Amino acid sequence: MSSIAALNWRYATKKMDVTKKVQQEKVDQIIAAAQLAPSSMGLQPVKIIVVTNPELKEKIRAIGYNQSQITDCSHLLIFAAWNVYSEERVRHVFAQTNLERELPADANQDYLNMALGHFPSMTEEEQFTHAAKQSYISLGVALTEAALLGVDATPMEGFDPAQLDEMLNLKEYGLRSVTLLPLGYRKEDEDWLVKLKKVRTPLADFVIEFQ
Amino acid sequence: MSSIAALNWRYATKKMDVTKKVQQEKVDQIIAAAQLAPSSMGLQPVKIIVVTNPELKEKIRAIGYNQSQITDCSHLLIFAAWNVYSEERVRHVFAQTNLERELPADANQDYLNMALGHFPSMTEEEQFTHAAKQSYISLGVALTEAALLGVDATPMEGFDPAQLDEMLNLKEYGLRSVTLLPLGYRKEDEDWLVKLKKVRTPLADFVIEFQ
Repeated sequence: MSSIAALNWRYATKKMDVTKKVQQEKVDQIIAAAQLAPSSMGLQPVKIIVVTNPELKEKIRAIGYNQSQITDCSHLLIFAAWNVYSEERVRHVFAQTNLERELPADANQDYLNMALGHFPSMTEEEQFTHAAKQSYISLGVALTEAALLGVDATPMEGFDPAQLDEMLNLKEYGLRSVTLLPLGYRKEDEDWLVKLKKVRTPLADFVIEFQ
Repeated sequence: MSSIAALNWRYATKKMDVTKKVQQEKVDQIIAAAQLAPSSMGLQPVKIIVVTNPELKEKIRAIGYNQSQITDCSHLLIFAAWNVYSEERVRHVFAQTNLERELPADANQDYLNMALGHFPSMTEEEQFTHAAKQSYISLGVALTEAALLGVDATPMEGFDPAQLDEMLNLKEYGLRSVTLLPLGYRKEDEDWLVKLKKVRTPLADFVIEFQ
């Protein structure tokens, strides 16, 4: 099995068909894929916000350069990341992991101490950037899963994250928004991009080999 | 088709079997998947460096916390990103895209101007961070593809990127290293992690819904 055909099929859908809903089972699988993505030290600083409310989608579109996919999509996923790696959060992940693995509560103490020592020297902004990077792994995994399921998905950085965080009260969750991923189905006859060739860096430029 | 089973099978392999090589065809598919990953404004600021040279792998291990996967793996992938979004680079991507799509050389001028206007207000470090984030999308896509092909892959941030950049002369390419992804096959009897349960944030904590 390979994802190459699916990745060639996918593209940054510009026009979605507002009448077509993505089956909940498929949305669940896309979210499950994002959830299974790895993260630095297994800390999983990533959350997904799912917006289906039409009024809220309209408000987000207004701070998202008026991009139609935000309202025309079936489910709007928002990838968010921890605003900081607090000691409490790091300890919680380790405790939960030990619990589920039926290990003693103090197992992996060295690794925990390493993780705890990693962040205090970073500014809050640097900590968020670190967490945000992890959310891009989940984004990559999720958009691959969407393509494998035949669901269109358009990754977007083009919105005002500070305004979105305020709109959704993400500060209360200790989160900041990073990217949008509207899920839906392409409306081919109204999408200027669908027929255009996918262009990628030629392999000879993309890869540098040290043999 | 779905990647969920493959994502459950994969894990951050701690011990790879140095005697097992990954078929070139599979390496090529993993690289092709990374190449097909989307990027902000389609600018593709990501490159992959493939290291198979044993002496070089040893040197990288020495600046990678002595992690054994760096030398035991079959192919060491290094995900690198542009150090800056120069005007020349941005113009080149747009020109190449128009050429391959058989569009006039001045097509998409508004979008080009938007892209050109996006980066000059950012510091070089911010530009690199923006590019590095895109490389995490490719990383997510590549590790999903590896899992689908039954190839083990361990994403790693734990190395000294400045030293690696120097070692590989990445500055000459206008690149900086971001993550490592050793490819190979697990050596189950020597891997402490392989039998442990994969632990993820429970779905109820991972997802926030606005219906």
